[in-house]
Amino acid sequence: MTLQETRGLLAKVPFNTLLGMRVRSVHRDGITIECAVREELLNSAGSAHGGVAAALADAAVGIAIQRHVRGKRRITTVEMKINYFRPVSQGRIRARSHLLRVGSSLCVGSVDLTDDRGRAIGTALVTYMFVDRPMTAGEARGSRD
Amino acid sequence: MTLQETRGLLAKVPFNTLLGMRVRSVHRDGITIECAVREELLNSAGSAHGGVAAALADAAVGIAIQRHVRGKRRITTVEMKINYFRPVSQGRIRARSHLLRVGSSLCVGSVDLTDDRGRAIGTALVTYMFVDRPMTAGEARGSRD
Amino acid sequence: MTLQETRGLLAKVPFNTLLGMRVRSVHRDGITIECAVREELLNSAGSAHGGVAAALADAAVGIAIQRHVRGKRRITTVEMKINYFRPVSQGRIRARSHLLRVGSSLCVGSVDLTDDRGRAIGTALVTYMFVDRPMTAGEARGSRD
Amino acid sequence: MTLQETRGLLAKVPFNTLLGMRVRSVHRDGITIECAVREELLNSAGSAHGGVAAALADAAVGIAIQRHVRGKRRITTVEMKINYFRPVSQGRIRARSHLLRVGSSLCVGSVDLTDDRGRAIGTALVTYMFVDRPMTAGEARGSRD
Repeated sequence: MTLQETRGLLAKVPFNTLLGMRVRSVHRDGITIECAVREELLNSAGSAHGGVAAALADAAVGIAIQRHVRGKRRITTVEMKINYFRPVSQGRIRARSHLLRVGSSLCVGSVDLTDDRGRAIGTALVTYMFVDRPMTAGEARGSRD
Repeated sequence: MTLQETRGLLAKVPFNTLLGMRVRSVHRDGITIECAVREELLNSAGSAHGGVAAALADAAVGIAIQRHVRGKRRITTVEMKINYFRPVSQGRIRARSHLLRVGSSLCVGSVDLTDDRGRAIGTALVTYMFVDRPMTAGEARGSRD
Repeated sequence: MTLQETRGLLAKVPFNTLLGMRVRSVHRDGITIECAVREELLNSAGSAHGGVAAALADAAVGIAIQRHVRGKRRITTVEMKINYFRPVSQGRIRARSHLLRVGSSLCVGSVDLTDDRGRAIGTALVTYMFVDRPMTAGEARGSRD
Repeated sequence: MTLQETRGLLAKVPFNTLLGMRVRSVHRDGITIECAVREELLNSAGSAHGGVAAALADAAVGIAIQRHVRGKRRITTVEMKINYFRPVSQGRIRARSHLLRVGSSLCVGSVDLTDDRGRAIGTALVTYMFVDRPMTAGEARGSRD
């Protein structure tokens, strides 16, 4: 799936558009998305709300999985955990996902969150589940697991 | 801190306003906030994006802590973990926080996420840190811990 | 499933025995297990190692699920998250689990960790997965979900 | 801090010894520890109990932090999150920690869990806190943060 097609996947999600997310690059094991910190995304301390990085992490792993399965399966977030290292008040927040595990029913990805200057601002682990139907043995043999 | 004052705290946060969050009620050990699921908050499956519930959980604990310390201290989110039980496509998402621990430097709260019909749709644990200065012994004695 | 039968479930697990876990009581939505803090379970600071409470939390939810399905299904831990509020150097650590969600493939439980004096010492969220086969529609209708 | 000194740090912890942990190697940003899966560490399904990998993850980050500060500060685990990818029934479980963030009060590390054959069996994020006293400005300038 090309960068252009991946951008299409992200743009189909209204909440991603509301936040201003954009796919920056695609990688063998994940993607990098980003979002400019603007007034509407701030908390009362003047830095990006924790929900912004959480939404980026969720999207970065979800879209990486959809690329991995070439958009052929339906997924839903099971759970997410995120650590915040430092606040970001301006510039862009980047989320680089790595798929760590693609199983027959669950997928887990990690996310490195950085700011414009490349500093680590947080990290996340996100678990997704396939919600269509279990794969057949033949499909499973063809999968990464 | 009254319901009205608590609503003021939430409304000062631009991201909470962007999502349409509103304080519904205040409790001895936390608060209940809610957010109507509207088109802009959806994912590609037509249900609320995972980042929406994450933002609600973060805000529900953060504002509960600010009430607890009567707005006198500065806090930042250290980390958050959220489990999603079922998707929500319409109506409101409610987040009811409970402060489990208010220490001298860290605070932890749990959050029950429910839909309009009172069904559990998820749960979260959120850790905040005081970022002003450590409390003096006298202040600590007056605290809940 | 009675207290005696539940104790049998826990005792079948070698690691639970190594740590000295014991079922204290059973509840409608979970169980309470405990473990005496002894020399072998300590860290270098002289309090119970973080792995001890993590093992208790994992077991408290796992056994609660096995009770819920009357021992008829096979489960495995998907993920766990635990917060530590205060160190415990002596007495017992108690883990009280609550099943929050029993779905067709995933189960989530929360755990309240307390010491001998009833003080909160931590909290956990644990996700399990059924690893036998998906339930049939008939079984699912009979389930809690 | 040499491999030998790091082994000394781990061996001082009774629970690490009970589980049979051993430092395998040290790295610039973390350490690798391991533990042989033996009868006493099993769950009822005949694979290593979830608490074993959790204890390894906790220790792998804790000891990495102690190396980083050359044993000069006191730390305690704030919280931990672990995902399990596949059960391990024999051989060794390895935990490779990476310090992602060493701040003035909090430290966060990630952990890659693998089996004897190098397969990913899980991943973890662990947060520690310094519990001695806040560093002075001079100390902080000398720190990694």
